[in-house]
Amino acid sequence: MAELFLDDFKAGDTFLSDGVTITESEIIDFALKYDPQHFHLDVNAAADSIYGGLIASGFQTLAVCFRLFIQKGILAKSSLGSPGIDDLKWRAPVRPGDTLKTRTEVLEIKPSSSKPDRGILRLRYSAMNQHGDEVLSFVLNHLLKKNEKR
Amino acid sequence: MAELFLDDFKAGDTFLSDGVTITESEIIDFALKYDPQHFHLDVNAAADSIYGGLIASGFQTLAVCFRLFIQKGILAKSSLGSPGIDDLKWRAPVRPGDTLKTRTEVLEIKPSSSKPDRGILRLRYSAMNQHGDEVLSFVLNHLLKKNEKR
Repeated sequence: MAELFLDDFKAGDTFLSDGVTITESEIIDFALKYDPQHFHLDVNAAADSIYGGLIASGFQTLAVCFRLFIQKGILAKSSLGSPGIDDLKWRAPVRPGDTLKTRTEVLEIKPSSSKPDRGILRLRYSAMNQHGDEVLSFVLNHLLKKNEKR
Repeated sequence: MAELFLDDFKAGDTFLSDGVTITESEIIDFALKYDPQHFHLDVNAAADSIYGGLIASGFQTLAVCFRLFIQKGILAKSSLGSPGIDDLKWRAPVRPGDTLKTRTEVLEIKPSSSKPDRGILRLRYSAMNQHGDEVLSFVLNHLLKKNEKR
């Protein structure tokens, strides 16, 4: 996958990641550290919850979704971090054994008015499970370099 | 700290967490797994980046900020998860040795129109470092039970 800069993207461009299977072990490890709620930690308590079984922390699903895109390396030379996320929705539970892929779509490219070498790429992230259901969506504002060679 | 239900909160209520010091080791471990970008992984490459040194992944700062609040146990009996986050801003870098605390403020309580036993608590989260600078803010929509005994 080619490494792209701000000015290489156009609205409507889409990317699809490889998949990753979310295991019970990873769900519990993450929750012990960052999200110690019973429906993320305890299979018996989770079975009695409104979810009917263990589900992944939404913060884990978010981080996995981002990782699946970033590991493609598209932004490896251009990424300068991010000022934030808009409109994050956890749409469906993620359960042990579910396999997630990330679809990203370019919404908008906004060159900086003060710094001519960079700008914001607004990317809509969507995590989908093996049934094609969208389990998470959000818009991440990427701060990206323009290509210096142009 | 008392366990609270949806109807126990009122707009303007605030809570302050204990602190946690973010180490270089934790920053690199998290980044290897979820956010493998050079300014989160490689102290030398990070020194040459716009950040001038290693910084924590924003996804790690987010998860830590949530953990600091949830570990207070206030929502232990009422939490039913979350439909999403609005307006997440990473406002300043988090560096090795920084100590974060989480301040939360109740923005709004919205009882469900369809399910009388629950509703949404809109909580504004703010992560602050040892200098009192806000490094992260977001609004999390908590789905909470009402108190059955009322």
